[in-house]
Amino acid sequence: MFKEGVTKKEVYAQVLEQAIALFEGQKNWVRVHYIFVSTIANDFLGLSNLSNTASLLYHGLRSLPSPIGDVNWAGFYVLDPKHPNQLILGPFHGQVACQTIQFGKGVCGAAAQSGVTQLVTDVEEFPGHIACDSASKSEIVVPIVQDGKVVAIIDIDCAELDGFDLEDQAALENLADILAKSCDF
Amino acid sequence: MFKEGVTKKEVYAQVLEQAIALFEGQKNWVRVHYIFVSTIANDFLGLSNLSNTASLLYHGLRSLPSPIGDVNWAGFYVLDPKHPNQLILGPFHGQVACQTIQFGKGVCGAAAQSGVTQLVTDVEEFPGHIACDSASKSEIVVPIVQDGKVVAIIDIDCAELDGFDLEDQAALENLADILAKSCDF
Repeated sequence: MFKEGVTKKEVYAQVLEQAIALFEGQKNWVRVHYIFVSTIANDFLGLSNLSNTASLLYHGLRSLPSPIGDVNWAGFYVLDPKHPNQLILGPFHGQVACQTIQFGKGVCGAAAQSGVTQLVTDVEEFPGHIACDSASKSEIVVPIVQDGKVVAIIDIDCAELDGFDLEDQAALENLADILAKSCDF
Repeated sequence: MFKEGVTKKEVYAQVLEQAIALFEGQKNWVRVHYIFVSTIANDFLGLSNLSNTASLLYHGLRSLPSPIGDVNWAGFYVLDPKHPNQLILGPFHGQVACQTIQFGKGVCGAAAQSGVTQLVTDVEEFPGHIACDSASKSEIVVPIVQDGKVVAIIDIDCAELDGFDLEDQAALENLADILAKSCDF
C-alpha cells in the first residue's frame, strides 16, 4: 500500500486521508458503553477505526528510511473506565505491550497527565520510562483531548534514537484532533 | 520473544500460556457494555487481551518456517452489537482490513454463520471469498462460541497456499475456548 521512496509528508497525508475516509463510515463504529464501578457514563470507542489506524501508522512509517523506518510499535492506549487515572492498552502493531499505565508514569503517563505531546529522543533519559519493549529507543506520545480531558493517547516507539521530529508531532496532533472530533471516547 | 528454530507446537504452547497469563489479570479487562438499537445487553470485551493476543499470534507464527511463517494477518472480528448478523473488525496485526463482514460472506462469514472452523487451503477456491488483502492465499477462521452463540472469530491469513493444518486448528480451537471462558463478549 505504501510504496518505496515515499516521503514522510506523503505517508502522513495518506494516513490522514484514509483515516478520515474510515471515520466517515459511521456505520462501522463499535459503540460501546463503559461500565463504571459506581456510575454509568456514555462513552464510545471506535474499535474498528483505531485497529485500522494503528495498521496505517505502523506500515506507513516503516516504509520510510531510518530512523523513522525503524518504528517498532504503533498504537493506542485509552482511558480506563474503571480507573480514571489509568490507561489501558488498545489496538496496536508491535510486540506485546503493558496492559495498563498509570497517569504520570513514563512517557505515555506523562502525556496523559499533562495533555501535552511528549517527543522523546532517548527514552533512557526520560524519568520513569516504562520499558515494555527493550528495543525501543525513542518515542512520541500524543494525547487525544476531548472537552479538555485526555481520553486516549497515540503512542509510537522507534528502535533508533531521535526517531521523531516536529513534522511527526504536527501530523500526529492533526490525527489526534481528527480522532477527538470523530469519536466519542 | 519467539526464538528462531522453535516448533509450531512450542509457539502455540507459548501463545496459550501467555494468553492465559494475560487473561488471569482480570483487572486489565476493558468491560464494555454494548448499546443495541432497541435493547441493552450485558456484553463485555477484553480489548487489551485481544490486542495482545493478536500480537502473540502474529509474531509467534511468523517465527516459523514457510508456509505458516508467511502469515500476513492475524486478529479478531467481533459480533456487531448493532447488527447481530454482522462482524466488525477488532484488534489485529497486518494490513488494513474490511471493517464489517456479513454473516455468510466469505471465510469469516461462513465460520460466524456455521459456528464451525473454516480451514481453507486456497482462498480463491472459496465461494464468495472477500479479498481484503490480495496477498492472502490461505486462511483459517475459528469461531469463539459462548452459550451456543458465535460472539467473535479468530482470523489468520497466510501469503502461501495451504498455510494451515489440523495442528493449527486444534491449537486455535483451544485458544477460542479459553477466550470464550475468560471473557463475556
